[in-house]
Amino acid sequence: MVVKHSRGSYEISTMSVEEVFQKLDPEAPIITDNNLEAYYAKFLNGRKVLVLQAGEGTKNFANYQKCLEWLATQKVQRSQSIVALGGGVVGDLVGIVAATYLRGVKHIQVPTSLLAMVDSSVGGKVGIDLPQGKNLVGAFWPPSEVLLATEFLKTLPHEQVINGMAEVWKYAFIVAPELTPLLEESDRDYAKIVNLCIDLKRQTVEADEFETTGQRATLNFGHTIGHAIEQASDYQLLHGQAISIGMVLEARLGENLGITPTGTATKIQSYLQRTGLPTTQKATNPEQLLDFMRSDKKVSGSELAFALLTDLGACKLFRGISEKNVLEVLSAN
Amino acid sequence: MVVKHSRGSYEISTMSVEEVFQKLDPEAPIITDNNLEAYYAKFLNGRKVLVLQAGEGTKNFANYQKCLEWLATQKVQRSQSIVALGGGVVGDLVGIVAATYLRGVKHIQVPTSLLAMVDSSVGGKVGIDLPQGKNLVGAFWPPSEVLLATEFLKTLPHEQVINGMAEVWKYAFIVAPELTPLLEESDRDYAKIVNLCIDLKRQTVEADEFETTGQRATLNFGHTIGHAIEQASDYQLLHGQAISIGMVLEARLGENLGITPTGTATKIQSYLQRTGLPTTQKATNPEQLLDFMRSDKKVSGSELAFALLTDLGACKLFRGISEKNVLEVLSAN
Repeated sequence: MVVKHSRGSYEISTMSVEEVFQKLDPEAPIITDNNLEAYYAKFLNGRKVLVLQAGEGTKNFANYQKCLEWLATQKVQRSQSIVALGGGVVGDLVGIVAATYLRGVKHIQVPTSLLAMVDSSVGGKVGIDLPQGKNLVGAFWPPSEVLLATEFLKTLPHEQVINGMAEVWKYAFIVAPELTPLLEESDRDYAKIVNLCIDLKRQTVEADEFETTGQRATLNFGHTIGHAIEQASDYQLLHGQAISIGMVLEARLGENLGITPTGTATKIQSYLQRTGLPTTQKATNPEQLLDFMRSDKKVSGSELAFALLTDLGACKLFRGISEKNVLEVLSAN
Repeated sequence: MVVKHSRGSYEISTMSVEEVFQKLDPEAPIITDNNLEAYYAKFLNGRKVLVLQAGEGTKNFANYQKCLEWLATQKVQRSQSIVALGGGVVGDLVGIVAATYLRGVKHIQVPTSLLAMVDSSVGGKVGIDLPQGKNLVGAFWPPSEVLLATEFLKTLPHEQVINGMAEVWKYAFIVAPELTPLLEESDRDYAKIVNLCIDLKRQTVEADEFETTGQRATLNFGHTIGHAIEQASDYQLLHGQAISIGMVLEARLGENLGITPTGTATKIQSYLQRTGLPTTQKATNPEQLLDFMRSDKKVSGSELAFALLTDLGACKLFRGISEKNVLEVLSAN
């Protein structure tokens, strides 16, 4: 599958894990995490590898600097491609590293988690978190290539598979209700699911690469509240878990505003619960969540913007949502 | 004057210092240094201002992070422009901050030093230094606007004016020998000089924005050795001072290779000396300089690339220069 963008295009090629490592230049610098290093040591031995601690906390400024200084110490040159071998954390971090090392070099995404496969490895949004908010530092920097091996999911902890399912459900909720039966199967066909989701994401980002028309912003369904919840939990909640709660709350926000049909939030909630995802979060202070949301990149003036469902399977960006409406939903959580 | 680039264009508007501050949005976040804060306090009072320590050492990762976190704490939004009020250090730093804050926001360059006016505020190259080398982290991120007030030069320390003259002389050496009489005047017309240099830079960057054809790389004359000298001095030498030495040495390298006409280095040296710039640097270890050069962004494989004079007023990028030739010139210094 080829994804087009303003500066060119890149190919997403499907292959086995072994083929991934055959394809990678033996000299290419690889950035990965300690879980993957343990599982795939035999493929990594003898290569230039920087191993980071697995987990969202890794997507910070200290590791951004560490990666850049590592590349500089290795004297990696402009002509070389940097490889992101990992989930969304590694992919996002390596992306911003590639976007800024020597004013921009190529990078190859090798997504190893379900979440990275269906979401972060496609679309070119890269970045790191600040203490003030998620993804506040970043760039639009598409990979030069995505090597897709769903075989990596075999070594992915079950909890992480469920984590990725939140983003998969998001596609069903915002644009592709026809995915639902596939996702409700007890023995899911992940290769098929991943390919369908990637194609949906491709269509969306090709239509609105720099998030200017609002179309790409529909991919943020569940994320405005979800990011705040993720932050408030100090990243103890996984991204997918926080997004799951966020989707239910944003569906309820849409219902309260008369945008989302009544009953949608309850339907969404039961799908997510059956998948093993959390859908409520009691402990959080609504005012604190709201304050995190004020740092959201979609904020303009004192009004918030939300991607809201106009139906189950249809989504649109709405601006000018008042903080009062948001607080109401957060307080009822 | 309008500068065109791949994503649009920006205007360089000439005005007085007072007009600069009238033009800036009173809400715009301004990043500047302590020298400028002291001189222009009356214009800065009541505005959102982040003040950094003046000096090349400021162009580092810690300040990059500090600027981003300051913007996030101030909840600066995507629609706002960040103002770089300062010399090359502030301009380069704010540029990479703007390129990566919220995945990229606009920034306005207000160059206050001669060096920033004729060089760094035009062309969109932004970045910071790593311990491993100069400008190793950065982006191509053109400003949305350049507000040019040569009146700022009145408060610029004499040493800094001379520092900027190194970049001015560079234009005379690489492309515009007709500048020479203007630069040799005892009472230089800086407004005229700045405008001529900016126009030369504009032509070069418009022709080769991403430094792919070699034309833009001619602006690096003196910089490959110069950057290494600057680094080796631990930034005790000013950029212009290091570049001045670098230009003499690179002219000598060109002569040794039969590319630059014999006698050119001596001519260059006397122009620079008469301006008050250093042209030799005894203390530095040639092997250490060479090691710094290996991190240069133009390096490919084990060969170095240099912008070399083919005549006084003409320059071209040459690849495949051996380390032996470079060491010879450095050792004779």
